[in-house]
Amino acid sequence: MKIVCEGLDLSDAVLKVVKACATRTTIPLMECIKISAKNDGITLTATDGEISIQKKIKAEVYEEGEVCVPGRYFSDFIKKLEGVQITLDAEDNRMNIIYADSETTMQILSAEDFPKIDTDINENSVVLETEELRRLINATTFCCAGDDSRPILKGCQIVVSGGEINMTALDGFRLATTKGKIISSTGDIEIVCPARTLNEIEKMLPSDKGETEIKIQKGNLLVCVDDTTVTSSLYNGDFIKKENIIPKSFITYVTVDKKALKSSIERAAILVRNDKNSLIILDISQGKIEISSNSEIGNLCEPVKAEVDGKDLKIAMNSKFISDAINALEEDDVTLSFNNQVQPFICENVIDKNVLYLILPVRTSNNA
Amino acid sequence: MKIVCEGLDLSDAVLKVVKACATRTTIPLMECIKISAKNDGITLTATDGEISIQKKIKAEVYEEGEVCVPGRYFSDFIKKLEGVQITLDAEDNRMNIIYADSETTMQILSAEDFPKIDTDINENSVVLETEELRRLINATTFCCAGDDSRPILKGCQIVVSGGEINMTALDGFRLATTKGKIISSTGDIEIVCPARTLNEIEKMLPSDKGETEIKIQKGNLLVCVDDTTVTSSLYNGDFIKKENIIPKSFITYVTVDKKALKSSIERAAILVRNDKNSLIILDISQGKIEISSNSEIGNLCEPVKAEVDGKDLKIAMNSKFISDAINALEEDDVTLSFNNQVQPFICENVIDKNVLYLILPVRTSNNA
Repeated sequence: MKIVCEGLDLSDAVLKVVKACATRTTIPLMECIKISAKNDGITLTATDGEISIQKKIKAEVYEEGEVCVPGRYFSDFIKKLEGVQITLDAEDNRMNIIYADSETTMQILSAEDFPKIDTDINENSVVLETEELRRLINATTFCCAGDDSRPILKGCQIVVSGGEINMTALDGFRLATTKGKIISSTGDIEIVCPARTLNEIEKMLPSDKGETEIKIQKGNLLVCVDDTTVTSSLYNGDFIKKENIIPKSFITYVTVDKKALKSSIERAAILVRNDKNSLIILDISQGKIEISSNSEIGNLCEPVKAEVDGKDLKIAMNSKFISDAINALEEDDVTLSFNNQVQPFICENVIDKNVLYLILPVRTSNNA
Repeated sequence: MKIVCEGLDLSDAVLKVVKACATRTTIPLMECIKISAKNDGITLTATDGEISIQKKIKAEVYEEGEVCVPGRYFSDFIKKLEGVQITLDAEDNRMNIIYADSETTMQILSAEDFPKIDTDINENSVVLETEELRRLINATTFCCAGDDSRPILKGCQIVVSGGEINMTALDGFRLATTKGKIISSTGDIEIVCPARTLNEIEKMLPSDKGETEIKIQKGNLLVCVDDTTVTSSLYNGDFIKKENIIPKSFITYVTVDKKALKSSIERAAILVRNDKNSLIILDISQGKIEISSNSEIGNLCEPVKAEVDGKDLKIAMNSKFISDAINALEEDDVTLSFNNQVQPFICENVIDKNVLYLILPVRTSNNA
């Protein structure tokens, strides 16, 4: 393989695709970027086996071919060569990188065993406004599970049906679900997409208004942003039905100024930040919520004015979960709806009900 | 103790003094901030046994007294209360923090055993332009040792004599020394001040033009910036005499464009970043330096145009040390002066010779 290209183009491309390189793996190829030279350009590809990112750039191709370069070394190196023209000349197990009067050689691996990336994904598709897709991803993926104990919970359920899209994430302690508008779709869709994939897609979305298409076929997803193509395998298995866990009726409704509640919870969280669960208590009675926390550092009790409709309630929760939820809501006031101290409660905007967060309380010896 | 003060004042003060709190210690008092209420204000003090920071703010004092509060918890808590008036009311082993309609209680410790901070430091003094002090600190402290194997090397030597100030730092592998102007001094001074103290002082220096006074007395140093007083114990012992290790003559002189050398070294360093020593080689001959590095990832060879005066030389070094040194130099061109591949070499500006970096080469099997 031998090609000549502009440093700026190559740098832009490697920095995009390197995000799909595996970080901790025993398979060296998963840490590589594959460079394929053909016709009038080169295609860079990286994959960790789940997500793949691919980008094509213009290049003068003197000799077609494919090689695999160590992803992070190559991208860090190339990003320091933005201003110059670069020649990549590979033979056997080494590639010469020639720029200005200099020459660097990198060890490379054969591209033969590099995973095949299927970009022929076209069966179903949904088109959204780019802004709407960004909002849907930001509203949900932070509630996905971070560990591997139940892999499907590391994904976000996406359901397209009846002209709308629903995204749901849960980690066993909390759930996020949001509804959005679509521009068009080929039909009903129901998939579970890795949160990591969605977060990488979100980072690539252009800031200007426009549309983004998500294509799906046989357990795979593809999104193309400018010339960058992201594909990802989807999770198989049954996702929890949110209808089964979101209570249909509530006993206590609270409407409260988001900013006041947020800062009170943040102060309460400081005292318990070294405790498992980071436990805070909400004591809800007519006209107010009393937020309290208690640890060997000290204890806090702050009343926050609130409109309370229904029965008084004392309920304990992880401060992080409620903080995350109210931070993600957009209106000035939020509504919290409860049944009792053991059933999950929900946090919503007062007006726009397209986003809902459900949080499981913590049972304590005091309120169990 | 009972006082009332403004949240904004208290927040500003705790965020300044908390920087002197110890981070890892078995002595709880070293993680505390002492609050002393007297007359018309409160004084906050923190110390890790080496550095102390003290700040006085206005307060209505209803009951004089002294208490110690957990430093980081208290500062994180108070910084979330900037907008309100705060009452601190301490009795026995607890302090009530009263704000708006809320009350938080923190466990406190008796101030009896809190280290006494001597701020009566006045014997000797040197006055510098604030900008000059900032430059001197930034030019040297990064070369201080980070580990405890030779404690005095964690400090920076400050020598005031003959109307000028000299600061020198070294870690066993490299040395930084810089000369500056003073406005006045009470006489000759020679101390070794912990790098951490100098760095904290540097962060506090105001950005406007002005003067800063460093006061010294019996192994202690004091700097007062606005209403914040930093004191620090100094290191005892003999500091290495730089005259003994900086070569007086050189065989090879190289003048080179700083930016070109810097980017070449940065690229060379990428290939060896996982290697101990992060070894790069400079091959100096007429008209150029050839920078090279070599690891299992690959190898690099980049010529950089240079004005070379003297004998050809091939010399190996830690890429970080030379990177740090040339980054700290301010002119567009730098001069490197060498004797041979085992003796230390120096990096300087071409014109302003007030800063000098000395670096010990690495002996390799190739060039030993």
